[in-house]
Amino acid sequence: MKNKFLTVLASAMLGVTVSFGWSFQASAQNDPLPSWNDTSAKQAIVDFVGRVTKAGGPDFVAPAERIATFDNDGTLWVEQPMYVQMAFALDRVKALAPLHPEWKDTQPFKAVLEGDMKTLAESGERGLVEVIMVTHAGMTTSEFAKIVTDWLATARDPRFKRPHTELVYQPMLEVLAYLRANGFKTFIVSGGGVEFMRPWAERVYGIPPEQVIGSSIKTKFQITDGSPVLFRLPEVNFIDDKAGKPIGINEAIGRRPIAAFGNSDGDLQMLQWTTLSGGVRLGVIVHHTDAEREYAYDRQSHFGHLDVALDAAAVNKWTVVDMKKDWKVIFPFEKR
Amino acid sequence: MKNKFLTVLASAMLGVTVSFGWSFQASAQNDPLPSWNDTSAKQAIVDFVGRVTKAGGPDFVAPAERIATFDNDGTLWVEQPMYVQMAFALDRVKALAPLHPEWKDTQPFKAVLEGDMKTLAESGERGLVEVIMVTHAGMTTSEFAKIVTDWLATARDPRFKRPHTELVYQPMLEVLAYLRANGFKTFIVSGGGVEFMRPWAERVYGIPPEQVIGSSIKTKFQITDGSPVLFRLPEVNFIDDKAGKPIGINEAIGRRPIAAFGNSDGDLQMLQWTTLSGGVRLGVIVHHTDAEREYAYDRQSHFGHLDVALDAAAVNKWTVVDMKKDWKVIFPFEKR
Repeated sequence: MKNKFLTVLASAMLGVTVSFGWSFQASAQNDPLPSWNDTSAKQAIVDFVGRVTKAGGPDFVAPAERIATFDNDGTLWVEQPMYVQMAFALDRVKALAPLHPEWKDTQPFKAVLEGDMKTLAESGERGLVEVIMVTHAGMTTSEFAKIVTDWLATARDPRFKRPHTELVYQPMLEVLAYLRANGFKTFIVSGGGVEFMRPWAERVYGIPPEQVIGSSIKTKFQITDGSPVLFRLPEVNFIDDKAGKPIGINEAIGRRPIAAFGNSDGDLQMLQWTTLSGGVRLGVIVHHTDAEREYAYDRQSHFGHLDVALDAAAVNKWTVVDMKKDWKVIFPFEKR
Repeated sequence: MKNKFLTVLASAMLGVTVSFGWSFQASAQNDPLPSWNDTSAKQAIVDFVGRVTKAGGPDFVAPAERIATFDNDGTLWVEQPMYVQMAFALDRVKALAPLHPEWKDTQPFKAVLEGDMKTLAESGERGLVEVIMVTHAGMTTSEFAKIVTDWLATARDPRFKRPHTELVYQPMLEVLAYLRANGFKTFIVSGGGVEFMRPWAERVYGIPPEQVIGSSIKTKFQITDGSPVLFRLPEVNFIDDKAGKPIGINEAIGRRPIAAFGNSDGDLQMLQWTTLSGGVRLGVIVHHTDAEREYAYDRQSHFGHLDVALDAAAVNKWTVVDMKKDWKVIFPFEKR
């Protein structure tokens, strides 16, 4: 208890966000993961943390090397019926349409404005990139952060009728807090846009901007009226997905994680990079198995497609979380 | 004193390197910057830290926002008579020459092998990129880190006859420690290669790999004999210099620094990005004015060219450190 108190006190002094850690410690002195059922998944996480933090033990890992990486969509928050960032892009097309009367007759914008998802899907990657660029570029980084923040304040999930930032997984918040309380640095490593996540990741996950890794577009430095800005250009800079995840991790962190959490084939290489390098490592796949409380999907799903990585989990002894079986609650609001 | 003890204790628990902070605190209870003379430069740094950390004060900055960025070459360590990384590349060409008999007759390698710096310089950027790629690509990231570490263990500065990692500026080590003791996160933002700095930056500067930003080449993820590696490709990924510095800072940190330290025109945009955004900010230029103890150079120098940024310092009220006048010692070994 004394150590925990010091950790929290010192974290505050050092500027580390401890809100989740604190609530976790206050509510569950003896159980670091109170929203998890006592199944093998929970046991695997607790065992791993115990082994790498046991001073003098054979599997001890120095605090500086305790890096844990988390996918975002489908691992920390809901990614159905579509990625939140895609919902954002579609809403932005509608908001910007009055400035672009030509969109009424131009694909893929016509499809977006008419809510014709089938035609939009048929426009393929090229169409989607067009939608992303027109909604994500053409403003400064500060302006974009405000657009994201404003949108999240009013947007609601179509099924749960709540802000997207409330549709985060309570058991995963507990894992984040538990790892941080044990000296880990927690990072997001997402295929989503890094500047779409940073405005709210610290408040929602306790993960500061400098520990958020994601896809990005290019920016241009310029001084406008004596004020330096970064202007967002309609050009892809980096796609932080699949084999891009270990590359992004290496570029941004420069160390190999010892724990990684994902939920789809997009996370396969991150899990390989993390776990197949010797030493005690933790690889976790969140398997969406609960159609009643959330969604059930894997090999057939477009968003969060989980196929090769599910097979690889069995081979590589990654922990597969069965949401229906392993989680007492899905969302923080269920606890109230 | 109690707070400082807790900081150090907790830093250890949280995995933050505190070696410099500790030695600083043990040796200078009342003077956070003992190797600095009591001139206006030192005063500007101490005033800034006092203002942004004064709880309840008008200029208070929350710990999470206390980001300080440091150029490396010429700001934290010696960059004359050439960048250390260039000395590394030239040595590597010589080491690899037996495997490339054709280099004896091929420029720019012939020039390197003959020590003909004039011809090498005449080969221009294209020649230099060729030298960099052949010495920095074609191996895994782990292999490259070992090559750098091994080279640094034996390479000696031609003038001071010491390892390059001993030719770091003691007054700047004190600034790094002082800022960290005041809740800052310290980052390197260098035009040099990120993977050239990371193997030693934590030991020498107390800056962990995830807080080192630099130039990079592209990498490729692959699984070789069941083991995942990142293979370094001979293709530029990002140049973290000039306007690239604010871009690199935004990509890696996602917040604007409130303090930035540089020494050349390559740092101009980083200093603009940091200081020209309102609020109390600190911009520092290390001016090399001491030919006797180190080097004296600015507007005419090829390495560490300081011209536009020196003029901008006067306009923008950046602090210009006069090494000869402001620093009691230059290197750590002078203290012994």
